[in-house]
Amino acid sequence: MRTIAVTGSASGIGAAVRGALAGAGDRVIGIDLRDADVEADLSHAAGRAKAVAAVERACGATLGGVVACAGLGPQVPDPATIVSVNYFGAAELLAALRPALARSPRSAAVAVASNSAGLVASSPNPLTEACLRGDEAQAREIAAQGDGFGAYAGSKLALARFVRRCAVSADWAGAGIRLNAVAPGAVRTPLLDAGLAHDQLGPAIRAFPIPLGAFGEPQQIAAVIAFLLSEAASFCCGSIVFVDGGSDALTRPDSV
Amino acid sequence: MRTIAVTGSASGIGAAVRGALAGAGDRVIGIDLRDADVEADLSHAAGRAKAVAAVERACGATLGGVVACAGLGPQVPDPATIVSVNYFGAAELLAALRPALARSPRSAAVAVASNSAGLVASSPNPLTEACLRGDEAQAREIAAQGDGFGAYAGSKLALARFVRRCAVSADWAGAGIRLNAVAPGAVRTPLLDAGLAHDQLGPAIRAFPIPLGAFGEPQQIAAVIAFLLSEAASFCCGSIVFVDGGSDALTRPDSV
Repeated sequence: MRTIAVTGSASGIGAAVRGALAGAGDRVIGIDLRDADVEADLSHAAGRAKAVAAVERACGATLGGVVACAGLGPQVPDPATIVSVNYFGAAELLAALRPALARSPRSAAVAVASNSAGLVASSPNPLTEACLRGDEAQAREIAAQGDGFGAYAGSKLALARFVRRCAVSADWAGAGIRLNAVAPGAVRTPLLDAGLAHDQLGPAIRAFPIPLGAFGEPQQIAAVIAFLLSEAASFCCGSIVFVDGGSDALTRPDSV
Repeated sequence: MRTIAVTGSASGIGAAVRGALAGAGDRVIGIDLRDADVEADLSHAAGRAKAVAAVERACGATLGGVVACAGLGPQVPDPATIVSVNYFGAAELLAALRPALARSPRSAAVAVASNSAGLVASSPNPLTEACLRGDEAQAREIAAQGDGFGAYAGSKLALARFVRRCAVSADWAGAGIRLNAVAPGAVRTPLLDAGLAHDQLGPAIRAFPIPLGAFGEPQQIAAVIAFLLSEAASFCCGSIVFVDGGSDALTRPDSV
């Protein structure tokens, strides 16, 4: 039986991942602000340290998988906090739990990026660069000068690039730990509902085309995450799997 | 029971796909030059028409899936034939079998691109453009002026972009047919063996780094294809899933 830590486990994609993994026989350690095995706030360093310590205690310092789902949507009023949770809350937890993953003979981790990363990937992005340098103070400062969408998409782009950079390293691939990401599109979660209720973001989200014709369900993202954690994905490393009903292919057809 | 047509079914990734699908209870119609249910040469229009007609007869004009695996490696002496098989042999078969896919309530298709597409994706590529215009004569002429690697990578890039362009259209996504691709890296197949035995290509293939540490096995690619054909991938559309042990992430870390 694998033990898998899942951040953002109380709702949305994280809850669907928890359900899918537990249903398949894994032991899940859920992490969230509340209604979770480990209650912690990933928006600051102390909360992340608390979460890591509690997960290590709960798993005996050995994990078969980590899934970083916790994230804030672009409608959250404080863009700096979006960056702290979406990038640093994911990247720091993955890095801190890596030794526990390395103690399993075959382990894997998946981060939840976003297809919105593709919308900002073609231009230089100082926020993304600050994230990848690990400079949270600078990233928060840049985010605070912009809007929630910039913070959301920029932090998710940074997370996708973090995954690709780390995945191929001696610490990850070299230690037998596969690290990949999914990039979901619009999925029926509390995060999406809050965006839809927002004055400016709601119409933009509704206008964004989805070739398959409808918003996704959290279970559809969880199924891809469960696949990436499985031995069926044993040659996937550093891959960003878009799961968005075709929105990315529509907006960036030649981005291969 | 789904009926799934698989090109290149006699060896390599195609044979592994045939085995994986048949093992899971699907009926497979294999297509290859020999040792297949449908024996046809996909390097020219007449061979493709023969293949399509035979598949339609065998499946009663209704398919649950199509997998386009047939491909020639960069060591093949005639670059024009590489392009005819790798791009036109795949794209024309997918287009011609699309109506049979549309007759199933939920169907899916997967093309086999290559992580080599990523190595040529950042510059304008006249060969790729000729393929995407459907101009086989022009594409063959351009290919004949270059080497096998250019023909291979350029035709696989075109195939990946064809998938993204078609996938989101009314004919595919709009008709409930999910179209996606895998982009394998170096995988132990007869195609790879022939490349390794080549004077110039062999050393280049051996020198290309694979972060997970070894060539892949055909079964590892087949597992991802089987996943993309399944309902577990029901929100994937136009996605190019790299399955290459991390080579693409290593060479293009910021290509998100």
